[in-house]
Amino acid sequence: MSEDEKQIRALIDRWVEKACDRDIDAVMACYAPGVVAFDAIVALQFKGADAYRKHWEYCMSFSESMGDMIVKVPEMSITIGGDVAFCHYLSNCGCIDKDGKEQTGWMRGTVCLRKIDGQWLIVHEHYSAPFDPESMNALTELQP
Amino acid sequence: MSEDEKQIRALIDRWVEKACDRDIDAVMACYAPGVVAFDAIVALQFKGADAYRKHWEYCMSFSESMGDMIVKVPEMSITIGGDVAFCHYLSNCGCIDKDGKEQTGWMRGTVCLRKIDGQWLIVHEHYSAPFDPESMNALTELQP
Repeated sequence: MSEDEKQIRALIDRWVEKACDRDIDAVMACYAPGVVAFDAIVALQFKGADAYRKHWEYCMSFSESMGDMIVKVPEMSITIGGDVAFCHYLSNCGCIDKDGKEQTGWMRGTVCLRKIDGQWLIVHEHYSAPFDPESMNALTELQP
Repeated sequence: MSEDEKQIRALIDRWVEKACDRDIDAVMACYAPGVVAFDAIVALQFKGADAYRKHWEYCMSFSESMGDMIVKVPEMSITIGGDVAFCHYLSNCGCIDKDGKEQTGWMRGTVCLRKIDGQWLIVHEHYSAPFDPESMNALTELQP
């Protein structure tokens, strides 16, 4: 594994860990200031780290009452070209409910990065669940 | 604009045009054989061009009764590093109904490419609409 791939894997691992900890400063440290994010919920896009931070604050407070967070990324594909890279993966996300049961669903994640001043940062990310075109409901019960 | 950026823009423009024409062979010619796609509807992922072609056939037949297709990509961000690139954009998609009225909504597209034997091809794409975390409905009426 190349040094760049190791650094990118470490960045995504840290992002996962800090998202679960609801540590917003550590999560935001993974993004470039000009990040453009297509998140799974609420809005079409968030342009810039300030706008995305507000959305993360909303998500963390929204999920607070649901219990401890779970984000699992069992497998990840990484492609690197010079100082540009992209990753994609399926992620099992959700919460541990009051009875200690995992309430999770599968989501899709695409993460695009640039190496800026020697450090890999996320410049674009896209999270989503597919929807059923007849009912228009998000499909959160699908299994890989 | 670099030669690579011109080629990538031409590829995406062709993809848009051929998707509107429901020309499945021309659409599939934009993808690498090993493409991994996260599409907006039905399934978590499609692995490989054969699986994705079947989904495209389903989408084209599903939309056939709705009228002529519209896909507009007013603005696109492209980042290139050597033989690796990624693009993201908002896309206004839908159909022209029987009364000649455009019935469209905004979607998010992320397209990841590699230059293989001198030709840019899509190796990963991610399309989606966000959803409302309370109703769980796809949000297809949002405006950028």
